[in-house]
Amino acid sequence: MVNETQHTCSASSSSKSDGGSSSGSESSKDSSRCSTPVLDADRHERLREKMRRRQDSGDKWFSLEFFPPRTANAAVNLISRFDRMGAGGPLFIDVTWHPAGDPGSDKETSSMIIANTAVNYCGLETILHMTCCNQTKDDITGHLQKAKRLGLKNIMALRGDPIGEEWEEEVDGFNYAVDLVKHIRNEFDDYFDICVAGYPKGHPEAESYEADLRHLKEKVFAGADFIITQLFFRSETFLKFMKDCQAIGITCPIIPGIFPIQGYHSLRQLVKLSKLEVPQEIKDVIEPIKDNDAAIRNYGVELAVTMCRELLDSGMVHGLHFYTLNREVATTEVLKRLGIWKEDPRRPLPWAVSAHPKRRVEDVRPIFWASRPKSYIYRTQEWDDFPNGRWGNSSSPAFGELKDYYLFYLKSKSPREELLKMWGEELTGEESVFEVFTCYITGEPNKNGHKVTCMPWNDDPLATETNLLKEQLEKVNRRGILTINSQPNINGKPSTDPIVGWGPSGGYVFQKAYLEFFTSSEIVTALLKVLKKYELRVNYHIVNVKGQNITNAPDLQPNAVTWGIFPGREIIQPTVVDPVSFLSWKDEAFALWIEQWAKLYEEESPSRMIIQYIHDNYYLVNLVDNDFPLENCLWQVVDDTFELLN
Amino acid sequence: MVNETQHTCSASSSSKSDGGSSSGSESSKDSSRCSTPVLDADRHERLREKMRRRQDSGDKWFSLEFFPPRTANAAVNLISRFDRMGAGGPLFIDVTWHPAGDPGSDKETSSMIIANTAVNYCGLETILHMTCCNQTKDDITGHLQKAKRLGLKNIMALRGDPIGEEWEEEVDGFNYAVDLVKHIRNEFDDYFDICVAGYPKGHPEAESYEADLRHLKEKVFAGADFIITQLFFRSETFLKFMKDCQAIGITCPIIPGIFPIQGYHSLRQLVKLSKLEVPQEIKDVIEPIKDNDAAIRNYGVELAVTMCRELLDSGMVHGLHFYTLNREVATTEVLKRLGIWKEDPRRPLPWAVSAHPKRRVEDVRPIFWASRPKSYIYRTQEWDDFPNGRWGNSSSPAFGELKDYYLFYLKSKSPREELLKMWGEELTGEESVFEVFTCYITGEPNKNGHKVTCMPWNDDPLATETNLLKEQLEKVNRRGILTINSQPNINGKPSTDPIVGWGPSGGYVFQKAYLEFFTSSEIVTALLKVLKKYELRVNYHIVNVKGQNITNAPDLQPNAVTWGIFPGREIIQPTVVDPVSFLSWKDEAFALWIEQWAKLYEEESPSRMIIQYIHDNYYLVNLVDNDFPLENCLWQVVDDTFELLN
Repeated sequence: MVNETQHTCSASSSSKSDGGSSSGSESSKDSSRCSTPVLDADRHERLREKMRRRQDSGDKWFSLEFFPPRTANAAVNLISRFDRMGAGGPLFIDVTWHPAGDPGSDKETSSMIIANTAVNYCGLETILHMTCCNQTKDDITGHLQKAKRLGLKNIMALRGDPIGEEWEEEVDGFNYAVDLVKHIRNEFDDYFDICVAGYPKGHPEAESYEADLRHLKEKVFAGADFIITQLFFRSETFLKFMKDCQAIGITCPIIPGIFPIQGYHSLRQLVKLSKLEVPQEIKDVIEPIKDNDAAIRNYGVELAVTMCRELLDSGMVHGLHFYTLNREVATTEVLKRLGIWKEDPRRPLPWAVSAHPKRRVEDVRPIFWASRPKSYIYRTQEWDDFPNGRWGNSSSPAFGELKDYYLFYLKSKSPREELLKMWGEELTGEESVFEVFTCYITGEPNKNGHKVTCMPWNDDPLATETNLLKEQLEKVNRRGILTINSQPNINGKPSTDPIVGWGPSGGYVFQKAYLEFFTSSEIVTALLKVLKKYELRVNYHIVNVKGQNITNAPDLQPNAVTWGIFPGREIIQPTVVDPVSFLSWKDEAFALWIEQWAKLYEEESPSRMIIQYIHDNYYLVNLVDNDFPLENCLWQVVDDTFELLN
Repeated sequence: MVNETQHTCSASSSSKSDGGSSSGSESSKDSSRCSTPVLDADRHERLREKMRRRQDSGDKWFSLEFFPPRTANAAVNLISRFDRMGAGGPLFIDVTWHPAGDPGSDKETSSMIIANTAVNYCGLETILHMTCCNQTKDDITGHLQKAKRLGLKNIMALRGDPIGEEWEEEVDGFNYAVDLVKHIRNEFDDYFDICVAGYPKGHPEAESYEADLRHLKEKVFAGADFIITQLFFRSETFLKFMKDCQAIGITCPIIPGIFPIQGYHSLRQLVKLSKLEVPQEIKDVIEPIKDNDAAIRNYGVELAVTMCRELLDSGMVHGLHFYTLNREVATTEVLKRLGIWKEDPRRPLPWAVSAHPKRRVEDVRPIFWASRPKSYIYRTQEWDDFPNGRWGNSSSPAFGELKDYYLFYLKSKSPREELLKMWGEELTGEESVFEVFTCYITGEPNKNGHKVTCMPWNDDPLATETNLLKEQLEKVNRRGILTINSQPNINGKPSTDPIVGWGPSGGYVFQKAYLEFFTSSEIVTALLKVLKKYELRVNYHIVNVKGQNITNAPDLQPNAVTWGIFPGREIIQPTVVDPVSFLSWKDEAFALWIEQWAKLYEEESPSRMIIQYIHDNYYLVNLVDNDFPLENCLWQVVDDTFELLN
């Protein structure tokens, strides 16, 4: 937004406000049995409703602005930044639009695809910027249709920089942001929430501050839902601007844009682009320390915190919008010091949700993808409706093939060299594979001194919840029960529990103990004998890469393994062990041996052949202990198995 | 069936067996999200599949035959007999067809309506007999269509008695049962399961025993699924018959018809109708005691038990069909002595299920109708689909009006005089109403010495589960908190618990404490003050007859108050407190004051005016304690309310 220029002439003030007759809701209305329990209001409301609710409740909030990355690697990094900064609880993020960078394309670095990833794979409410200058109506409509198809629900409508000096208004063209606002409302009715830019000091190209305010009012009356401002250096600047807006009848939310100074050069560049003047008192501090990045950042954080406090204390400001410059430290620091960074251990559900509107009622998934939510979302992206309340008996859940292991949002955060250090430059046998699994569990360095912080089935270190099982997991992995997913049994812990809690407060969460692992056919043979003793208590599914499948699950029914009971709500059962989906997961789980691990090594190399051998000969096993109120019996099952083998 | 006569000529042996391409299933197939968890296989299978499953598992079973009653009062009695005998676990019941009695009509005594009631309101798998002799094709098709519409799935295809002596075969008419079997298969494909009659001694009108066997084979090959036999007096008779059937290629199940001798006259009449001969050794015992009903019945029970044991011990018999003559004692006694009467405290669900095929996936209901399941079924009979897994946010659950309080299957089992004795010939004030509620709870006689065994909202004595709350309920009813529904909180009791258990074994059941009552506006005012203290813990709905509604339930969401966790299954939550349905229930609950109670008294009488006053001025309240793992706080809420009033 910093490079946004402003229209300089008046435009029609015809207005169409946001009370459109067609809401974006896709829930069916023809049945009294339509199930749409609102587990988390945030998943169901539009952005403008969320803002209103926060304002009514007095909860302060923040949002984060990012620009699209230049390279594919930077895209991978940005996505993990989204995940990390998403944990702090932004109300939304926004992604800027750079006409020169092919922003509407399918490239992994385009604004469109970055915003798509933020919504669908990171579950973030997202605003996509869009500029209209020098574009045809069809281009713009095409971009908007694509955005809608991808699940984007919010547009920041901007003019964009005219190309070259000799820019002239086009008749019937998109000359100003207000034209884009009108176009969106004409073509898409009330589907999108629309944001527009405000200039606390007036736009540099505006005739006057007052003329600029009038243009802003036109944008709002043309259908914009809220305003985000250009950065400023003093809280008075914003507060005066806000009062002036209100005085001329602008009543929608106005969100101050906050720019924590992070370095000398980025400040200079920004000032140049935005044509703002840095106040003398700030220059006086910065000039002497211009080569000391850390000092400048500390000062920038201090300055931002002070200004934000003044804004919030004014009672006029409910949310703060941060220009992050795609960096993490300064903004996070400011937010933490303000006390509005909400690293809430309570997840809305036990898995990462998607913010695509068609998935807003989704509240059940097979547990298999618990550590690979992005893969799950990818493989179910073509579904028209999503399980709500119950998984059901699905004789053919149509999971898409996972062929694109290298899609940037599915890719490991670690490069090949890192992975080789963790998983072994050279494997000497199955035992060296056991060792990798064991190091991942224990967090201890491997024999070459490298910590194993990810596995092909899990790109993150062990979950805190899994830590509860660490000792037993270490023991079994050492002996060739190669675990890739597990959860302890939980018998009614408060939903606010920092380790296993999820969902609204005041509830109770439950789990059945679950264990999923690869293991040799020798161990499977012994295990099957042992499982006879546990026939009524333990459900199992055992399958190899060829699809040979052994199970005691009745009639292909799903088994709920995580559920929560909340005040005034129906039961939520977010994860199930579904026998049918397990066969789709099996393909993915086995393929990861090859795609992520074997392919690190030369073809025909011993290391690669060891992984290939495991892939071809091991079984994937899952076990559920149905007796959740009793002590987890799955460790006993494994112990009995080893005993039988000895 | 005892009055069934048999065709005497051969009929075509063209056969159409039961492997039809269209199954009766109505579940949608076009979505991978179709939810059909099988809580209880019995609710989902067709009768012939149930038989096969029982045979495979070696479980012995029984079934019960009834004839339609003559009077409306007898119909009410028969329905409560269905409920009582249904508790013993018959695999099915069947209802005979008497052409002279207008069997297909809508009269409450017709075969069709009795069978309809058994299926829909008593939840019993039911076979409707149907005879074809002297009827047009259109009549028969009409009966079958009606049966299908009402949810009947099984037909016993019979010829029926020719009217008069001079009966002659009609060309292209329905002369024999086999014609009816063929007609059903032609017109309804595989929708119905078809049963036909077998005669262990040969039909009295048959040319020979062998010819009769051939006719039976024709009926089976025309599409019958199983055979029920005419009664017989010696197990050898049946076992020989069964072997003879098998020898000529009849492989479907053959179920012996058992007739426990219950009295001298009924035996004589039966023998006359069936043209069977009573063995001399039985006559020798009976003749001397022919005026001693009890002695004959004891002997009949003894005889039946011995014969049934021989049949079961033969290994050839898996189920026994009882000719009950609409009586309870003898048959129940035989079944109990055989050990196949299964008064299983484990209900499939916490409420009475319906056996209508369209309700086979129904597993959620509002708790309000827990004591009035027949009224619930009646009011939802027009629904096309039923909640499965989740109640959902139903902005307009279309409950039918309950106007027909006097429909025989909704009617109180007690006549007016009884009700007056229980509820008071003359009421002297609100306190005398409190007294009636209190006596119902305590089980103590009222001041006139009569026990109160039912209430307008509950036609049965207090449930064993409610007994757990007896002491507290007594206390609050005495003071004008007039309870009509309640349940204790349960935190994970085994599903086999004899008092609160339900569903398959190996599971755990849970409940939130629930209390529903009528009370005065004075008490409501105090209660509302007290409830402020419990705001986060207790959900409440308070409404008067005019619909003034006070609640703290968020967004009209349902609150699950009963749920169960079972091995290898999704969560089942059979009862919810749904704020929207509560308003439909409110109309019914208030109307019952007038319809069932006030109308016992003369218009303008003081007693009637007292009930009218309560109806007009009291509130209906429901309370849910969401903290099910803690001690139920609802009694504390009520205590606090009374304290505030003092």
